[in-house]
Amino acid sequence: MPLVRLELPEIIPAARAQRAGEAVHQALVDTMGVPADDRFQLITRHPPGALVCTPEYLGVRHTANALFVQVTCAPGRTLQQKRAFYARTAADVAAACEVSPSDVIIHLVETLRENWSFGEGVAHYTL
Amino acid sequence: MPLVRLELPEIIPAARAQRAGEAVHQALVDTMGVPADDRFQLITRHPPGALVCTPEYLGVRHTANALFVQVTCAPGRTLQQKRAFYARTAADVAAACEVSPSDVIIHLVETLRENWSFGEGVAHYTL
Amino acid sequence: MPLVRLELPEIIPAARAQRAGEAVHQALVDTMGVPADDRFQLITRHPPGALVCTPEYLGVRHTANALFVQVTCAPGRTLQQKRAFYARTAADVAAACEVSPSDVIIHLVETLRENWSFGEGVAHYTL
Repeated sequence: MPLVRLELPEIIPAARAQRAGEAVHQALVDTMGVPADDRFQLITRHPPGALVCTPEYLGVRHTANALFVQVTCAPGRTLQQKRAFYARTAADVAAACEVSPSDVIIHLVETLRENWSFGEGVAHYTL
Repeated sequence: MPLVRLELPEIIPAARAQRAGEAVHQALVDTMGVPADDRFQLITRHPPGALVCTPEYLGVRHTANALFVQVTCAPGRTLQQKRAFYARTAADVAAACEVSPSDVIIHLVETLRENWSFGEGVAHYTL
Repeated sequence: MPLVRLELPEIIPAARAQRAGEAVHQALVDTMGVPADDRFQLITRHPPGALVCTPEYLGVRHTANALFVQVTCAPGRTLQQKRAFYARTAADVAAACEVSPSDVIIHLVETLRENWSFGEGVAHYTL
């Protein structure tokens, strides 16, 4: 169910961006109860100037490697699950991309389960 | 009011992607009560590796043609309307792109009517 | 906290798109209470055909310069704040891009404060 939008500066090589996508998916599986075969992602590498990030916010410093992870998913995860997801994603995406965990910026957009169709025009979660 | 983000692999030719955009819009008009002149879309064709899709989820198989339709719209459509929209969109986008309906993956993100301005800096739905 | 997605046709030069990003940020600061150092943006210039916009909706006319501003932010802004944001953004983005305010189309997607991590894997707004 989640759709992951992974937005990176193009200075991060494509192979590392792919590994970052795998890391986000594994974090969703391990911390948010997402099924292993429920993987839908858009991985976009942006030219210079496209991805604009403050140099520092809330005491966290950001560099030209800053990248954004947006997860559109069902509502209802607990705060504990979300915290575990952020911690795991920041660590593993940072390792995959060879950037600092401070450059991994994450947010969730929650939308109802009835709002999804996984093909064939069916509202799968209402069956 | 809806903003449609249509994300396709670049193996789907641009002309078919355009027809898919028209199909999504007509489905919104016919099943969700969207006005015919309320069309706002972003159609993006992605290079290999950018659009990552599970080979199978919930019994639906996906191929390299898998594409995503995200509709940001007002809350309040009934489940019946949403089901009709998914069915129509999957059928007609598949026909437009010459792909299988199993490769048309759809979700909605609902946001308040007061959250939209259609130009000139006005909150049109609160007038 | 906001993530701004600014989507423009590529006929708008990159330097103007950058100034539009600055204008959206300043509008958020001045009308919605966003901290000055809370800036996260994606600025994308799209090739012809990608950005599809109705020629007219609700009496507002649109041209080939039409551009979209999506702000993902916390819930809870008042209608008055949102109206001020739309007015300011339409005026200042239009000036930055040298387009008409009628071509500046805006919407907000609201998501919980616990849904954000600004780096290092921390849910900053729950501390």
